[in-house]
Amino acid sequence: MKIYDWHAAPNPRRLHIFLAEKGIKIDLVEVDRENGRPAAWYVEKFPHALVPMLELDDGTCIGEVPAIWRYFEQLQPEPRLLGIEAKDMALVTMWEALARDDGINRVAEVFRNTHPAFVDRALPGSAEPIPQLPELAQRGREGVARFFKKFDTQLSTNTYVVGEHYTVADITTLCVVDFAKRVGIDMPEDCVNLRRWHALVSARPSASA
Amino acid sequence: MKIYDWHAAPNPRRLHIFLAEKGIKIDLVEVDRENGRPAAWYVEKFPHALVPMLELDDGTCIGEVPAIWRYFEQLQPEPRLLGIEAKDMALVTMWEALARDDGINRVAEVFRNTHPAFVDRALPGSAEPIPQLPELAQRGREGVARFFKKFDTQLSTNTYVVGEHYTVADITTLCVVDFAKRVGIDMPEDCVNLRRWHALVSARPSASA
Repeated sequence: MKIYDWHAAPNPRRLHIFLAEKGIKIDLVEVDRENGRPAAWYVEKFPHALVPMLELDDGTCIGEVPAIWRYFEQLQPEPRLLGIEAKDMALVTMWEALARDDGINRVAEVFRNTHPAFVDRALPGSAEPIPQLPELAQRGREGVARFFKKFDTQLSTNTYVVGEHYTVADITTLCVVDFAKRVGIDMPEDCVNLRRWHALVSARPSASA
Repeated sequence: MKIYDWHAAPNPRRLHIFLAEKGIKIDLVEVDRENGRPAAWYVEKFPHALVPMLELDDGTCIGEVPAIWRYFEQLQPEPRLLGIEAKDMALVTMWEALARDDGINRVAEVFRNTHPAFVDRALPGSAEPIPQLPELAQRGREGVARFFKKFDTQLSTNTYVVGEHYTVADITTLCVVDFAKRVGIDMPEDCVNLRRWHALVSARPSASA
């Protein structure tokens, strides 16, 4: 079993933190890049051309972070990171999805439509050239502002994103905040609840996994 | 317990089909629109302003289709629609996510950036005006073409999207194909595997739920 990885990228980080919280150690294979895209050998192995990807010993390739999380949560349930009973699981799934849709996807719009390294590669996983759209970067920036406000409100009445325990909703939200900082967007000063929470989760050893 | 709904929209349809497959009947509340947006009473109840949404008897509001699926899969496991053991669950989660990212989200780009009813509402859930981007509609069209090819390949060696049993990966993929048709994009003639599968899953009673 091994994980194909781009260590500094935000989606692989969602998996690294999860595995650190579970105390699971797995071989990591850094995927090399060709013109910014995953190398040809990797695309042949996994045509979706996304990282991270978990390869099982039988050769099965599993991409998409929530899919890899689910695999390990079944294999080693404790500590429970995808929720405990039905309502809790549903709320964790919802808030993790909101962090992804309202957060990571919006920061990625800013990043991929402005960064010089992503000219003609504005969407991941495609071999065809996809031009950058400056208007989409602006839409992304406005989305990130809404994300900060929404999660600040949620954290005004919750210790973690969903109630009193740490879950994958915290993992994705942390990755959004730190990814946004990398494109020059910091948490607003008045998002005091989000800032309190960010200090709390950043202090866990998993945050530097 | 009740579900807030827009009956003709593609995301609510992912839930209707799931509930029909489980044989679960629940009260549906059709959310009225104000200038195309969910009505103010609904946004007050559920500020994410998305449909469908499940309201529990204790007042908890759960949005995002995979979150609502998870709730009902825990409550009533059979028939299993989110996968059975760890590897299968992971593959179902992956293919469902691919159908959403490569499929529904791309068709939605075409729909929301071209349809006259969505001028200044190019993203769901936002109260602020979000202008349409014609270039994004074009990017969406190219993405839908890649989606058809990818799923046709997967279905060349699988009866259903993941192996030999019907899952949520089939549900989302069916909703993508039928949503694409509504924006004028039909399955290419040469996608014979996808067409074979589409006839198979469309014949299930749940498809008209």
